[in-house]
Amino acid sequence: MAKVATITLNTAYDLVGRLKRIELGEVNTVETLGLFPAGKGINVAKVLKDLGLPVAVGGFLGEDNQGDFKQMFQSLGLEDRFHRVAGKTRINVKITETEAEVTDLNFLGYEINPTDWQNFVADSLDYCRHFDIVAVCGSLPRGVTPELFADWLQGLGQAGVKVVLDSSNAALSEGLKANPWLVKPNLRELEAWAGNTLASLEEVIAAAKKLKAQGIANVIISMGAKGSLWLNDASIVRAQPPQCENVVSTVGAGDSMVAGLIYGLTHHLSQQDTLAFASAVSAFAVSQSNVGVSDSQLLAPILEQVKITTIEG
Amino acid sequence: MAKVATITLNTAYDLVGRLKRIELGEVNTVETLGLFPAGKGINVAKVLKDLGLPVAVGGFLGEDNQGDFKQMFQSLGLEDRFHRVAGKTRINVKITETEAEVTDLNFLGYEINPTDWQNFVADSLDYCRHFDIVAVCGSLPRGVTPELFADWLQGLGQAGVKVVLDSSNAALSEGLKANPWLVKPNLRELEAWAGNTLASLEEVIAAAKKLKAQGIANVIISMGAKGSLWLNDASIVRAQPPQCENVVSTVGAGDSMVAGLIYGLTHHLSQQDTLAFASAVSAFAVSQSNVGVSDSQLLAPILEQVKITTIEG
Repeated sequence: MAKVATITLNTAYDLVGRLKRIELGEVNTVETLGLFPAGKGINVAKVLKDLGLPVAVGGFLGEDNQGDFKQMFQSLGLEDRFHRVAGKTRINVKITETEAEVTDLNFLGYEINPTDWQNFVADSLDYCRHFDIVAVCGSLPRGVTPELFADWLQGLGQAGVKVVLDSSNAALSEGLKANPWLVKPNLRELEAWAGNTLASLEEVIAAAKKLKAQGIANVIISMGAKGSLWLNDASIVRAQPPQCENVVSTVGAGDSMVAGLIYGLTHHLSQQDTLAFASAVSAFAVSQSNVGVSDSQLLAPILEQVKITTIEG
Repeated sequence: MAKVATITLNTAYDLVGRLKRIELGEVNTVETLGLFPAGKGINVAKVLKDLGLPVAVGGFLGEDNQGDFKQMFQSLGLEDRFHRVAGKTRINVKITETEAEVTDLNFLGYEINPTDWQNFVADSLDYCRHFDIVAVCGSLPRGVTPELFADWLQGLGQAGVKVVLDSSNAALSEGLKANPWLVKPNLRELEAWAGNTLASLEEVIAAAKKLKAQGIANVIISMGAKGSLWLNDASIVRAQPPQCENVVSTVGAGDSMVAGLIYGLTHHLSQQDTLAFASAVSAFAVSQSNVGVSDSQLLAPILEQVKITTIEG
């Protein structure tokens, strides 16, 4: 079995709640779903672990409020490779309104100083050699520039690691220059990279092909309820998940998709089966407030309804 | 010097941030001002301590995330009388938009079980006897009904304690039946109690008189930028603070006012001087994001500009 690690540079607590309607300028009482140790790489690791895959987690954690993270790593059995830095891990407030729109209020946490970064780079390049797939997920904390980030990604690739990149904004656009092995932008992120809106499926495929032509082996575009596309050298495959009747929260849908992809890849499923599985895991995530797959049997009825089309190849 | 305690039954962390404009349904990056141990009684105690008054703090604290509270009590020298209960202290997210409107997103924390409450009542009635003024501030946690709350308030009054009540909604309306020694509703809370809007100063005074006639020695109505009113047996006094040029956050303005009132009362200032001082402390609070008076010399220029009018008496 391939060895997998996920890296989260900008770890976060997710403070998750639900509300009929946010009244701006007023006192709102929130139906509280919980305060969860999170960050995109940790979410991916949690889903992978739920699916039965051993996984290591690395990146940065604030020293001052790491308690719930340590407890989570222990209880889930995640191998803890995190670097501790001075300060607090940030809090992301995620409010789902009844209409299923999520409002994110992202607060700032620790700032990475040059010594922290040098230590992390040296150490992570060393331990990542021992992993086959390293998923690098989420945004950059203060102190880490997109250029520093891209240099480090390049180092990972040169060390023979298959790098999965799931980020956005400057971290994504700069990170793409390091030619990761697999990227999973959503439609909005692909549009930002392409510099224009992509109205039709044809336009999306054209932009994804352009991205792939840069030297990225696997380009996966997630398009929310419209499903996803996977371009590689062999073919172009599209997955359409069933319509979700009971949308609780779209928090973690993208992370669940990344985990599903890694699961399929490490289990040597076909491209079609891997994308179908990843779509099911992602659709399942939308039906709950937290991230994870408590019971993998719940995936089977969703997986049955995922429609797979091979567009090319 | 009179001995003062504050009680916070529904303690909270304040996660405070600033933003140009909250975009609902979007990812918002928040200028982070901090994560502060708070709750209205703790805010009052912090201001009192900053003003040089020794003060004890009590109520409930969640066991699981009490670290920052303990550190704050130690560093400020607040006498810790808090009851620890299972679970987490809640988080109140407070976002100030550029136009100075505060949006509060109040998440839920611990729930008080009957045994917690019985222990608290027995213990607090015992230690509160040793204090002259006990300020009871804020909302009720889950598990504490307004009726249980009012019974306890009555017990405090019968023990010879001067009870200052600053609450809202059912906790206020039920708590008022216990005839506390001093209450400080804001205009909106007074309107809710009166059951109708109070458009003119005359209407506000009439409603406040009606409240006082219930058997409450001191009724103080805070009216935001319009200042405040204090009715007691001796007279009716109005204070008008200077216009605040630089409104940073109205978080803690009411708590600062309560602290200013207690400061004046324990220092035997006149009713006029006490209300003027409380108005200055409250106006100062509006110019900063956190609660407290870092340097009491900063109050002098504000105090000079507070206009005091004796309406009756």
